[in-house]
Amino acid sequence: MKILILGGDGYFGWPTAMHLSAQGHQVAVVDNYLRRSLCREENVEPLVEVPNLHQRAALWESVAGYPIPVFIGDLRQWETIEAVFRQFEPESIVHFAEQPAAPYSMLNRRSATLTLRNNLDVTANVIFAVKQFNPAIHIVKLGTMGEYGTPAIDIEEGWLEVEHKGRRQKFLYPRQAGSLYHTTKIMDTDLLWFYVRVWELRVTDLMQGPVYGIFTQENRIDEALCPFLNYDELFGTVLNRFVIQAVADYPMTVYGKGGQTRGYLNIIDTLNCVRLALVNSPANGELRILNQFTETFSVNQLAQKVQSVARAMGYKAKISSVENPRKEAEDHYYNPAHTGLLDLGLKPQFLTGEVLSEMIEFAARHKTAIRPEQIFRKVRWD
Amino acid sequence: MKILILGGDGYFGWPTAMHLSAQGHQVAVVDNYLRRSLCREENVEPLVEVPNLHQRAALWESVAGYPIPVFIGDLRQWETIEAVFRQFEPESIVHFAEQPAAPYSMLNRRSATLTLRNNLDVTANVIFAVKQFNPAIHIVKLGTMGEYGTPAIDIEEGWLEVEHKGRRQKFLYPRQAGSLYHTTKIMDTDLLWFYVRVWELRVTDLMQGPVYGIFTQENRIDEALCPFLNYDELFGTVLNRFVIQAVADYPMTVYGKGGQTRGYLNIIDTLNCVRLALVNSPANGELRILNQFTETFSVNQLAQKVQSVARAMGYKAKISSVENPRKEAEDHYYNPAHTGLLDLGLKPQFLTGEVLSEMIEFAARHKTAIRPEQIFRKVRWD
Repeated sequence: MKILILGGDGYFGWPTAMHLSAQGHQVAVVDNYLRRSLCREENVEPLVEVPNLHQRAALWESVAGYPIPVFIGDLRQWETIEAVFRQFEPESIVHFAEQPAAPYSMLNRRSATLTLRNNLDVTANVIFAVKQFNPAIHIVKLGTMGEYGTPAIDIEEGWLEVEHKGRRQKFLYPRQAGSLYHTTKIMDTDLLWFYVRVWELRVTDLMQGPVYGIFTQENRIDEALCPFLNYDELFGTVLNRFVIQAVADYPMTVYGKGGQTRGYLNIIDTLNCVRLALVNSPANGELRILNQFTETFSVNQLAQKVQSVARAMGYKAKISSVENPRKEAEDHYYNPAHTGLLDLGLKPQFLTGEVLSEMIEFAARHKTAIRPEQIFRKVRWD
Repeated sequence: MKILILGGDGYFGWPTAMHLSAQGHQVAVVDNYLRRSLCREENVEPLVEVPNLHQRAALWESVAGYPIPVFIGDLRQWETIEAVFRQFEPESIVHFAEQPAAPYSMLNRRSATLTLRNNLDVTANVIFAVKQFNPAIHIVKLGTMGEYGTPAIDIEEGWLEVEHKGRRQKFLYPRQAGSLYHTTKIMDTDLLWFYVRVWELRVTDLMQGPVYGIFTQENRIDEALCPFLNYDELFGTVLNRFVIQAVADYPMTVYGKGGQTRGYLNIIDTLNCVRLALVNSPANGELRILNQFTETFSVNQLAQKVQSVARAMGYKAKISSVENPRKEAEDHYYNPAHTGLLDLGLKPQFLTGEVLSEMIEFAARHKTAIRPEQIFRKVRWD
């Protein structure tokens, strides 16, 4: 299958590109290095510097034998997406090309405007390009479990059947997110759902939870193939941050009560989920929504898991409750469904002690690169 | 009250400005003449040419004695909105500054991109400006009944209490619209609802149905104060179009079966609803949603009403069913609530024979200006 990966330089994009390439698919990647620029601007660069896409693609070809064509350009510009579609002629698209961080989106007016414009303009251009060049293309879009928020009822898989005054209607499950970033994902869903209905597009929306991890089957051969690892408050995901904090002897920053519960998954499962979605395509005119996570944990539980493994490895691994800079429920009901991907064949990689100790070992190898001052800077939601 | 009207040149903007000014409020208007530009580009100009905003404001001051400061600029640019907020220091904002036409939004990629960017960028800038300059400002935002679509259950006023597996949760009423334009209004709602929750903004979202009419209390004194009257398929609303078609001896274009039912209101009621929302402000941190229409009609019923009055005035007023260029249900359940504005004191101006005959007389006075070729050009949704 010819698969085009938008945002192919990112934490998910590059590992996904290698994974699909290793499975025998023809893969191409597009990126404009937006996330690298933002990390540099905000002085929160990843733990280990990562070679650029051309270099990584060359390295991958040398070790695996598969080429991955690289396109550099801004997908908000029609000229960019048009050129890529004409040259590569994708059959499927994996759309990761969004500003991916909630705290960054809440930093200031500039960061909010950039998040809003980038995420929606790219999604719109993807839709228009598919319509113009090949409406049979399957769009696999990364949404987020955060779109649902934390309602007091069970979270279903994308849809909700409502009975009201004796009549019934199936709706998109109502969405109510906790950051501007997450809200742009809701707006993406609105846009995709509209055009699925009018133009009969073929779309999978993967409602992904926070991801952790570094290693995948394809990058163990050379650390230069590993993804970014951000450990700062702006771009780092919570478990990755806690691992670095434990190694750096920086008390793990639990926001408020720490009862905030989410569905988590290993980066290996992200790749498997995307692949399963691609090889099991929905029909034209179908918006298929899959909740993409494998286990739910509260922030307290995550901190305790890291603490337990890290202490056994000789770290102090303190936990510190800090004033919550976000606006969110710190103690809430959370029962989200997630059977769709298991039904497609997902075999989860759960958060074991082994997974955690391997992450801690990686962080320990790069301990001198950790800059504690970039870990926590209190980006307040208000 | 100091009220800033965004999109003050439009079909609603200018009549609202005069109405609030006549009620003793200090009113200022902003516009970039976007709609005038789009009508010119698409060769679908209104029935009667309308003086520019500076000219209308001067005319209004000469007849009513009240000044209405005019700002010309693009509210997508932060510099524009910042300058207006600093100079006028509004206490309330009425936000009409959006590309307002569903068919225009479905015309092509350029029109879709313009609609998406314009509508969301302006709404975001309004939010950011209110947060920066005065978070107590009440934002009155024009939404649309079209955000709800045509679900098989009753449409409530903005919110839906859901019972699911023995638990309860109140959600934003699920939205599912029939055009890109309407979808951008859903996306506006997502954005406003997020920032109401995090920043405790004070917002009224008026979910308005299609509006008809020309005359208001304030413009009877001089036709140069009347709003645009578009009768084309791109920018004209259905009843206004049917009136012109009857006068032009152009069979009224009913799409498909004509059972499409919506909630309608007279432009006079638009002004009253906006005023009632302004003088009865919600609390900070409240998103108040009001369904703004006074009567529901199917397209067939509208055509028959126009036919009946027009025939009594000597017109043939034929009705012609044409293939539906849109994707929409032509026969559906429709039972939307609309008590909120009545509770605030709205006294509806219903669609009487007198209202219709006055509209027909207006069209007849300008009959020679009607260009039949711009009435119907089949902008197809697919």
